[in-house]
Amino acid sequence: MKILFDTAGLDLGLEEAIEGAILARDELGIEPTLVGNEDLIKPILEKLGTKMNILDAKDIISNDDEPAFAIRRKKDSTIVVAFNNLNDYDAFISCGSTGALLAGGMFISGRISNVKRAVLPTPIPTINGNTLLIDSGANMDVDVELLVQFAKLGSVLKNVSEGIENPRVGLLNVGVEENKGNAITKEAFSKLKEADINFIGNIEARDINKHVCDVLVCDGFVGNIILKNTEGLASFIMSMINSNVIEKLSDSSKKEVFKYMTPLVNTFDYREVGGVQLLGLKKLIVKAHGASDRNAIKNAAASVQLMHKNKLIEKIENSFRGEI
Amino acid sequence: MKILFDTAGLDLGLEEAIEGAILARDELGIEPTLVGNEDLIKPILEKLGTKMNILDAKDIISNDDEPAFAIRRKKDSTIVVAFNNLNDYDAFISCGSTGALLAGGMFISGRISNVKRAVLPTPIPTINGNTLLIDSGANMDVDVELLVQFAKLGSVLKNVSEGIENPRVGLLNVGVEENKGNAITKEAFSKLKEADINFIGNIEARDINKHVCDVLVCDGFVGNIILKNTEGLASFIMSMINSNVIEKLSDSSKKEVFKYMTPLVNTFDYREVGGVQLLGLKKLIVKAHGASDRNAIKNAAASVQLMHKNKLIEKIENSFRGEI
Repeated sequence: MKILFDTAGLDLGLEEAIEGAILARDELGIEPTLVGNEDLIKPILEKLGTKMNILDAKDIISNDDEPAFAIRRKKDSTIVVAFNNLNDYDAFISCGSTGALLAGGMFISGRISNVKRAVLPTPIPTINGNTLLIDSGANMDVDVELLVQFAKLGSVLKNVSEGIENPRVGLLNVGVEENKGNAITKEAFSKLKEADINFIGNIEARDINKHVCDVLVCDGFVGNIILKNTEGLASFIMSMINSNVIEKLSDSSKKEVFKYMTPLVNTFDYREVGGVQLLGLKKLIVKAHGASDRNAIKNAAASVQLMHKNKLIEKIENSFRGEI
Repeated sequence: MKILFDTAGLDLGLEEAIEGAILARDELGIEPTLVGNEDLIKPILEKLGTKMNILDAKDIISNDDEPAFAIRRKKDSTIVVAFNNLNDYDAFISCGSTGALLAGGMFISGRISNVKRAVLPTPIPTINGNTLLIDSGANMDVDVELLVQFAKLGSVLKNVSEGIENPRVGLLNVGVEENKGNAITKEAFSKLKEADINFIGNIEARDINKHVCDVLVCDGFVGNIILKNTEGLASFIMSMINSNVIEKLSDSSKKEVFKYMTPLVNTFDYREVGGVQLLGLKKLIVKAHGASDRNAIKNAAASVQLMHKNKLIEKIENSFRGEI
């Protein structure tokens, strides 16, 4: 399997991306190609005593660039160079701007036939396993047809990535009853019931972490707010526990608490997840976190390797064949 | 100050509501009237060796009733009887159906002149003080004009309840930049800038608990999802800490952790807050939690007493005078 690795976008710098690609090659048997400034990459490879293919790209799209504009103008950026060469590769892993990856995916790689929009699913931790939140930020304004497409895309991903036969699909809403919600969720309820998925009804936000469904459908505005509220609140609660409980404990109790607390905090660590698969595009595109280290990059490669082996793209194509 | 106390809707039963009204009378100097079935209330008052005015109402609107329908049909319910008599009182406190309280407020009490909709603000705990989330569930579908009204109503409430001179108003959004968001938040941004409030810009959900603003504006769909996500996630994190950390500690460490953890968990307790003020109506209406005990009812009375003293209704009337 041939994967393009973006060397830009990591808080830890491009050496960390290169180390991640080396781990993916040595441990997973992947054939990596690095995308980035070869004047910077070559000396690092030399220092590390190894060789690797490079696609030279001297520019970078940052999170401050307007995505669609940057895709058109920054022709020598790592993301544009990667997308322009993607036909010769099986996947692209990047820690760069999510918006630019979505724009590049839509405008350069292109969507799978009958898929209206690319979408960003994110796994949310629950008491046992993950619930896939879809869309988690790609599509701010949606219609009912799009929500049904998110449900189908999420179902295929959950099946391919975890082998779940008929993933339970829920609609994020303010109440469980069919008549609850805003205009769009009310209408979506009946369309999701008719769709060829395992729709189990409305899900309230208070039940997200109880694993009441495998795929949770919402628009990208609400999904993004759920993710960021989760991030902020978890950090708020941990800091309150730190200053109001842990710091006040005796040294022996503190030591004991840390022993058990540290692995727990690690289970919430995004780096274990291995990046988020952009869905609906003709190619496998993984957005990894900017704070990724080499292991996170390797995990992203392992995740996309599984998608490739289990034929994610082909299964989405089949699922959308015959859609109007 | 004369307050109507709904005796229905408490998980702990009507005796707890009566005890709450007694506390409000004895500790706050409020003149309470109970609304409910006098055949049930009188024996309890007798047993407690006290007297209190009663408005007889033999029916109850439950959370399963469709609010607008129930308000029209259940003429002998505590909520309808309370609203029909509210002109003779200063406020109404109820643990009943939020939807029925909003419907009763809109259709029986009526809105303040130029206020388009009643709205439900909820204080969210932060590192220091509360941020008022408005709307937290009354209005599922909004337009830009409504969001601006929520900002004004929230600003007046924050001023009246906490004495903050120019409450900082934020717009809940997926990014801090002006061009971020869905169609409605993008348009709302410029209208909020023009409004006669202290608008400080977009706020991301990850910053809610950092007290970056005093009033946080969003539609009731998103607000309700934030509240319920917060509730579910806090309980999920605490249960993970319980089973993965606290239960594994030695007895002495466990005892020490509980000593500091219990007061912390209590600070998140809704019962300390004292209910939520429905805004935009001609009368002071407080929705208290169904799980309220007598102290929560008394706290709700204390909160509405402050609103009364500080002339919340008059200040909202002034703020909306001259609005189109």
